[in-house]
Amino acid sequence: MGENCIFCKIISNEIPSKKFFEDETTFAFLDINPASNGHALVIPKKHYETLADVPEEELKQLIVSVKKVAQAILKATKASGFNVLQNNGKVAGQLVNHVHFHVIPRFENDSINFSLMANQEEANELEKTAELIKKEL
Amino acid sequence: MGENCIFCKIISNEIPSKKFFEDETTFAFLDINPASNGHALVIPKKHYETLADVPEEELKQLIVSVKKVAQAILKATKASGFNVLQNNGKVAGQLVNHVHFHVIPRFENDSINFSLMANQEEANELEKTAELIKKEL
Repeated sequence: MGENCIFCKIISNEIPSKKFFEDETTFAFLDINPASNGHALVIPKKHYETLADVPEEELKQLIVSVKKVAQAILKATKASGFNVLQNNGKVAGQLVNHVHFHVIPRFENDSINFSLMANQEEANELEKTAELIKKEL
Repeated sequence: MGENCIFCKIISNEIPSKKFFEDETTFAFLDINPASNGHALVIPKKHYETLADVPEEELKQLIVSVKKVAQAILKATKASGFNVLQNNGKVAGQLVNHVHFHVIPRFENDSINFSLMANQEEANELEKTAELIKKEL
C-alpha cells in the first residue's frame, strides 16, 4: 500500500467512493470531479506509480477491465464515444501517484477537448527519433 | 483489412511510416504530426474500430506493447513523463477509425494540456450514475 495514497485508501474503503466494479486485481469508481457523465477511474488494487511500473499480468487484467467498464458506461450513459487517458508523472498531469486509467464518456457538444497540436520542429526529426527509439527496444 | 484505412496501409507498407516496433499482433510508429518529441501510435495489426471492438487477447498484447514502447521512448527522448491517450468515436476526437493508443512523451514547459474541468452538475449525480453503470456490468 502506498503511504498516504488516496486511491489505496479508497480500495481499502477507508475513504468512501462511488465504486461500481472490482475483480481480483482491479477496481473501478467514478471520478469525484467528473469531466462528463460517467467519468470513471480504473486502477490496479496494488499500488504502482505509473504504467511503466505495472507488471505484465496485472496490466493485462487492467486493460480488460478498462474495456469492460467502458462498455458498461457507454450503455448506462448513452454516450456516443469515449476517451481513455492515462497520465504518468507530474509533468504529464498525474495528480495521484497510483496509476489510473480515466474512462471519459463523450457527448455531442460537450466541452472536453483532447486535440493535439503538431510541433513542426519535431515533425522534421521523425527519422532520427525513430532510430533513437529503436536502439532502446 | 479496413477498406481505405490509412493505418492498414501503413501496416502493409503501402504507405511509408516511421515504424520502430512490431510483434506478432501489434505495430508502433511515430505520429506524423507529433505533439512532442517521440509521440507515437501503437495499434493492432488487425483492423478494429475502437477499443470496445478489440478481442481480449489482442488487447492484452496491445497494452503490453504500449508499456514496452513507452519505456523505450522515455529512454530515447529523456522525457520526464508521458500520457497514453486513446480516442473512440468521432465525438471523442478519433480521426482514423483503426483503434490506436497515443503515447505522448512530456517535457517541462511543453504546450500540451490534458487537464480536465469538473462538471458540477454531474458531480451531484454520482450515486445515481454508479447505480446505472452497475446494472450494465
